[in-house]
Amino acid sequence: MAKVKKQPRPKAITPKGFRDYFGADVEERRAMLDAIAGVYHRYGFDALESSGVETVEALGKFLPDVDRPNDGVFAWQDEDDTWMALRYDLTAPLARVYAQHRNDLPTPYRRYAMGPVWRNEKPGPGRYRQFYQCDADTVGTASMAADAEICAMLSDALEEVGIPRGDYVVRINNRKVLNGVLEIMGVDEGDTRDAILRTIDKFDKVGEAGVRELLGKGRLDASGAYIDGVGLTDEQAEPVLRFLTSKGATTEETLDNLAGAVGDSIIGREGVDELRQIADLLSSQGYGPDRIDIDPSVVRGLGYYTGPVFEAELTFEILDEKGRPRQFGSVAGGGRYDDLVARFTGQQVPAVGVSIGVDRLLAALREKGRMGGTAQGPVVVTVMDRDRMADYQTMVAELRAAGIRAEVYLGNPKNFGNQMKYADKRQSPVAVIEGGDEKERGVVQLKDLILGAKIAESATLEEWKERPSQIEVSRADLVSEVRKMLASQDD
Amino acid sequence: MAKVKKQPRPKAITPKGFRDYFGADVEERRAMLDAIAGVYHRYGFDALESSGVETVEALGKFLPDVDRPNDGVFAWQDEDDTWMALRYDLTAPLARVYAQHRNDLPTPYRRYAMGPVWRNEKPGPGRYRQFYQCDADTVGTASMAADAEICAMLSDALEEVGIPRGDYVVRINNRKVLNGVLEIMGVDEGDTRDAILRTIDKFDKVGEAGVRELLGKGRLDASGAYIDGVGLTDEQAEPVLRFLTSKGATTEETLDNLAGAVGDSIIGREGVDELRQIADLLSSQGYGPDRIDIDPSVVRGLGYYTGPVFEAELTFEILDEKGRPRQFGSVAGGGRYDDLVARFTGQQVPAVGVSIGVDRLLAALREKGRMGGTAQGPVVVTVMDRDRMADYQTMVAELRAAGIRAEVYLGNPKNFGNQMKYADKRQSPVAVIEGGDEKERGVVQLKDLILGAKIAESATLEEWKERPSQIEVSRADLVSEVRKMLASQDD
Repeated sequence: MAKVKKQPRPKAITPKGFRDYFGADVEERRAMLDAIAGVYHRYGFDALESSGVETVEALGKFLPDVDRPNDGVFAWQDEDDTWMALRYDLTAPLARVYAQHRNDLPTPYRRYAMGPVWRNEKPGPGRYRQFYQCDADTVGTASMAADAEICAMLSDALEEVGIPRGDYVVRINNRKVLNGVLEIMGVDEGDTRDAILRTIDKFDKVGEAGVRELLGKGRLDASGAYIDGVGLTDEQAEPVLRFLTSKGATTEETLDNLAGAVGDSIIGREGVDELRQIADLLSSQGYGPDRIDIDPSVVRGLGYYTGPVFEAELTFEILDEKGRPRQFGSVAGGGRYDDLVARFTGQQVPAVGVSIGVDRLLAALREKGRMGGTAQGPVVVTVMDRDRMADYQTMVAELRAAGIRAEVYLGNPKNFGNQMKYADKRQSPVAVIEGGDEKERGVVQLKDLILGAKIAESATLEEWKERPSQIEVSRADLVSEVRKMLASQDD
Repeated sequence: MAKVKKQPRPKAITPKGFRDYFGADVEERRAMLDAIAGVYHRYGFDALESSGVETVEALGKFLPDVDRPNDGVFAWQDEDDTWMALRYDLTAPLARVYAQHRNDLPTPYRRYAMGPVWRNEKPGPGRYRQFYQCDADTVGTASMAADAEICAMLSDALEEVGIPRGDYVVRINNRKVLNGVLEIMGVDEGDTRDAILRTIDKFDKVGEAGVRELLGKGRLDASGAYIDGVGLTDEQAEPVLRFLTSKGATTEETLDNLAGAVGDSIIGREGVDELRQIADLLSSQGYGPDRIDIDPSVVRGLGYYTGPVFEAELTFEILDEKGRPRQFGSVAGGGRYDDLVARFTGQQVPAVGVSIGVDRLLAALREKGRMGGTAQGPVVVTVMDRDRMADYQTMVAELRAAGIRAEVYLGNPKNFGNQMKYADKRQSPVAVIEGGDEKERGVVQLKDLILGAKIAESATLEEWKERPSQIEVSRADLVSEVRKMLASQDD
């Protein structure tokens, strides 16, 4: 006998690979992005906000095929059968916008963009299918002043959000210098070139000796597997290693080493000259190598960019999951690329840009105690007498007018313990209590919930008596006394 | 003979119904939302940011069917066949989040959310398929103090962003009062009730006489078509009209009129009592009827909400497309609804919320000259000598350090006219010029581009001589002189 099935209730879950952000997580990210936007605005960069949806044709990179229409992106067909997709980065929309509006936009066009992007990828720990990007690009100029400007702006932005000078360095390399090296090696195209590029990309991980092995016969990796090498002789591999390790004690020395590494290659010399222009511009503006440094060991993005590449690294140490100290590492990267709009218009348009890793930088600010330290919870005014809600509302209005975050407890006020549990869940720093007796005597009780928690954890009876966590103050002094209590908590 | 077709270039277009936002449009919206978030934060509301993507099951409202899986929403299937969709509002995600995290969230839970939502609808003039919403809701309390608080917070938020007191009013009605009226009419359910609800919804458009006709025999509408009426006699329709027109000279009078309209209906009396509680709470906090008013003629949302409903209306006049003055109208609305999470958990959870129409409020602020008035363009330092780029970069660095938006021209500097055209496109207020001669004499030229434009438009020769748009100042005074020029432009 078939049973009539009841419609099951829908499941309240975030889709796989997505997450919710609460309270301080949202507000701290917004504060950080606002601060960065302020710097970018001052540099003359204009905000651009395109929508989350683009035609797949405009995105270009991931064309849906019949079997896997969603490869890499989230895509669907519009009613007129046009394939649409969520943007996977902010560069592809910039290319579309610039091609579409180029007659109305200034040249060069400096723009910044901040917002979510979506990737249809397998989610992993800490890897989500929606995340924020924060980009700044200058489109339409080949001048190295644009590259220097973006590095200076990145440096300013890091300091603005709270990374102190000395805790970061923006490192610059140039793809053209590498091209010059490959040219004098006689491998400026073909499979060997590609293999060398892939090998260089591992420099960060395997170091000089590792790259030397990988360019030669091969290498036993950490897992015990043997990785085949490119097959160069030591002599053949030498120019690549010379390039990667050409950082000298001064910028001048580094540039001289690079000039030596590229020999008489025209593209190589051009690359060295570009780095020199950038270094000169920056040094004349006071950005020394302590902030922005020419460093040929920067390899991230060398395969993708066409000219200068740069990376911002945070140099302070954190403890890894095993408790060992290690450098915080990269929080931003960028470089010069020239094929931005060519696929739309046929014209090559030079461009240079930088992208800040929003979640990485936020994590760094939390590590440095720049964010997430202060209590974000509101002062909670408890309800002792349901009929005097207006009195309690007046208190929070006074507190808010003084810029203090405050709220009245709006749950069922019968059980005072529940009100205290609520205040705890709200991470409230102060609870205000005014029963009938207090009302009559013109006073209120202020409960210091931060101190209370500390006392509950550790204090002796003597300490508790010396600094009680609850005080009685005149109703007229509510605002000033709450402010005093909040200030004492910051000590 | 078949010709080999070249792959056509992709079209650089925004998808149908989507648009791009540039510069001030982005920054002004962000500034407005930040100001609102500041008020909401002070009221103890916590930020919530869920992702743009939800499971269709969780969104619930629009279940994809085989023929039209995208009806109303943009939806697609994940690799595991789960239907996913872009959120169409911020309330459905709130319901999912509250049901999912209810054990970790405080009760009541006050949250605000701001962000884009997507509608798969036919786009029209000014109607886009992605737009911003800005919501605040209190979940988990039936207390009228929550409703009063949201109205007060809305009022504060409007003033915070720049709507002066007197230029707006938050009007409150209550669905329960209407239910009471329908109850004493004997039509508290069924087709007649629904027909009456639909008719009331037209009160804004057709007024008292129109509603009277529509409740009765019917009405000839503006286009000449005859709209069938509900079929009530004048006497039968009277209680509805009495409800809609019961606004008195004072809140007390309005509440008395409403009490009369609902007679001895229990639900009706409850509704009047709720309005009285809200009015009392607000008046004791100093929010008089000039800011927040009980007004039974508010009909928007009466069909959707279950208790109090409210609407913020801007009362200043603008000119419509035909040049006739009319009130700016509604910019926010909300109310109480009780079925937020029941579909997930089976439990009724009372909630009250408000949604600000982001684009409407932005438009209002522009009408009031609160935004979009000041020049957003940067000071442009022109390049007279390509080799002295470092000098020009130093100038903009000085200007930025003083908080002045500034940039160096990074296009081809050969043609000075192009640099001026660029400054014009950038809406630059001031151009700085330092050629070799100026450099030698330790001076720079400042070109007042705002004044220059005015002069070009209208000034006589005398005026031009009296206040020239270009001045020479000492290089050392660059920052102070630019600041002076910018200040004079604000006059």
